[in-house]
Amino acid sequence: MPDFDLFIGNKNYSSWSFRPWIALRHKQIAFREHLVPFDFKNGNPDFAAFSPSMKVPVLKDGDLTVWDSLAILEYAAERHPEAGLWPVATETRAFARAISAEMHSGFAALRSACPMNMRRRSDKLDVSKAVRKDVARIVAIWSECLEKSGGPFLFGDFTIADAMYAPVVSRFATYRLSDDPVVRRYHEAMTGTEAWQAWQTDAVNEPWIVEEEEV
Amino acid sequence: MPDFDLFIGNKNYSSWSFRPWIALRHKQIAFREHLVPFDFKNGNPDFAAFSPSMKVPVLKDGDLTVWDSLAILEYAAERHPEAGLWPVATETRAFARAISAEMHSGFAALRSACPMNMRRRSDKLDVSKAVRKDVARIVAIWSECLEKSGGPFLFGDFTIADAMYAPVVSRFATYRLSDDPVVRRYHEAMTGTEAWQAWQTDAVNEPWIVEEEEV
Repeated sequence: MPDFDLFIGNKNYSSWSFRPWIALRHKQIAFREHLVPFDFKNGNPDFAAFSPSMKVPVLKDGDLTVWDSLAILEYAAERHPEAGLWPVATETRAFARAISAEMHSGFAALRSACPMNMRRRSDKLDVSKAVRKDVARIVAIWSECLEKSGGPFLFGDFTIADAMYAPVVSRFATYRLSDDPVVRRYHEAMTGTEAWQAWQTDAVNEPWIVEEEEV
Repeated sequence: MPDFDLFIGNKNYSSWSFRPWIALRHKQIAFREHLVPFDFKNGNPDFAAFSPSMKVPVLKDGDLTVWDSLAILEYAAERHPEAGLWPVATETRAFARAISAEMHSGFAALRSACPMNMRRRSDKLDVSKAVRKDVARIVAIWSECLEKSGGPFLFGDFTIADAMYAPVVSRFATYRLSDDPVVRRYHEAMTGTEAWQAWQTDAVNEPWIVEEEEV
């Protein structure tokens, strides 16, 4: 019996939900999934039943409620030290937290212009200078990490930092945001995992379609 | 000799810099301060010398560079376990991380409409529905924490969560965003610290004036 209950939004759109989901799944930390579709029209009144912030994802562990992708992942790392969710060395862990936090609060231009949408046909999107700046910074981060660690993930083995950037890997592919070989290499590592493939299969097959998509 | 070098922006405006600064100062963790004023006109090319993300704050510890307010505070918590930067109990720490992360990536309406500006005369600002929603959520968080812990800080003693919300305490006062007694009580606790007062004194006296202010 898993201890964790993970509440998520639609798999096709909820990039924030994807983060803890892929990390727990890839690390084989058992959890019960509760998928509560977004209500784009009326807001998300159903989220009130489980989410203090009215957002997803939310993790419940018995009486404890933890929300926000990064806080959930920190909690999972504490509860499952055997899973190696953070790099072991203090300095490397600090670096991993820095790039995770930069993702957590940043790259607003990219996130707004290029929403995660795994069903969308891959097609080059003409993007603004601000988005190109975000893309260049992310490519620089991935290049530095993969060069230092040797890959296949940012710090060798899969860590929270990979979970934080997983939705960006999807966005890069959908909107063809970079031709850099580092991006292709990292995309292959991420999409090669069973966890990625399981999420993606569910995402492309889920029944909830958002109007935007049909435009 | 302190181990840490902390790079920050203008004290009057850089809410993100305020977070690690007030935590390190309040916990008496020694650091050398490097204040690099924003260049609002030309961007911040000077930040390239020390900041991988071109943003402040940045912490250096010997050869290690850690950026982003939350990642810096996590690193300080690891290096100084004696300082009590996070609550001790796992569940309480998870809760503290959840509200810290919610602040870290959220409340965009409030942050955009009500920039930190300690020099600005306190005056009630007429704010949008989105800002009022942010304010209500923050008051709910503070109320829950202070009721559970008994105060004076969110988890009794000062933790990273207080550091994360410190700039919001300043914004609430400057723009008179709430009359809730919880807000007054928390404001008194935060502004009563030597660390707050030291930052504020520097902020109101620093020479760099931004044009916006004079409008």
